[in-house]
Amino acid sequence: MKVSSNATSLSVSFPEGIFPAGCPSRTVLDHITSKWGVLILIALSEGEQRWSDLRRRADGISEKMLAQTLKTLERDGLVHRNAQATIPPRVDYSLTSRGHELSALLVPLATWAFQNADDIINGQR
Amino acid sequence: MKVSSNATSLSVSFPEGIFPAGCPSRTVLDHITSKWGVLILIALSEGEQRWSDLRRRADGISEKMLAQTLKTLERDGLVHRNAQATIPPRVDYSLTSRGHELSALLVPLATWAFQNADDIINGQR
Repeated sequence: MKVSSNATSLSVSFPEGIFPAGCPSRTVLDHITSKWGVLILIALSEGEQRWSDLRRRADGISEKMLAQTLKTLERDGLVHRNAQATIPPRVDYSLTSRGHELSALLVPLATWAFQNADDIINGQR
Repeated sequence: MKVSSNATSLSVSFPEGIFPAGCPSRTVLDHITSKWGVLILIALSEGEQRWSDLRRRADGISEKMLAQTLKTLERDGLVHRNAQATIPPRVDYSLTSRGHELSALLVPLATWAFQNADDIINGQR
């Protein structure tokens, strides 16, 4: 599937606007909008971070889920893992250029959520 | 929590870049980046749709999950449900103005996923 780089509508890429299940773009969309993936990518948009920084910023994430999320993001070429053979060993995480491209789209989304959260939650009462 | 409307960095809104668990913005962020929520909001960005249209476009969604997703989006004030007392009854769904605001941020994200999906999946091999 190809999309022209100046596509403004998804109908350009998908006949009749259907998002086929099992298509690579659905897999990628799932990864980049995953509960913890979004928080990690946004945290890394502010610069390189250590494991413990990410754990603290993505408040509530378990060690296991942090490891799994970082592994997926690394495999997707979005996050770079830099392990230094110091004592104690030090591991830093940062965004790749593709990750930077993506986080530039996620930060406005998170900002919108922060700006609208109170109205949305209050509106439900 | 308040963010200035021209915030470019999340550190403006969150001390030390921490995203507190249980905070309204986390709940809202979870809704708007949910697996099916994203697909429904993007489908509706192209205009009003019937239940059956949404079911077809969000390929793979179950009846139950579609109902649940639409209910959450309606409660969040993002989607408007218009039921007409015709025979047979007809129900249309459309974006509210808040929903339009949000979908304008989600469409570029989905477009990015579509454009990068092949490279990302191939890079994993």
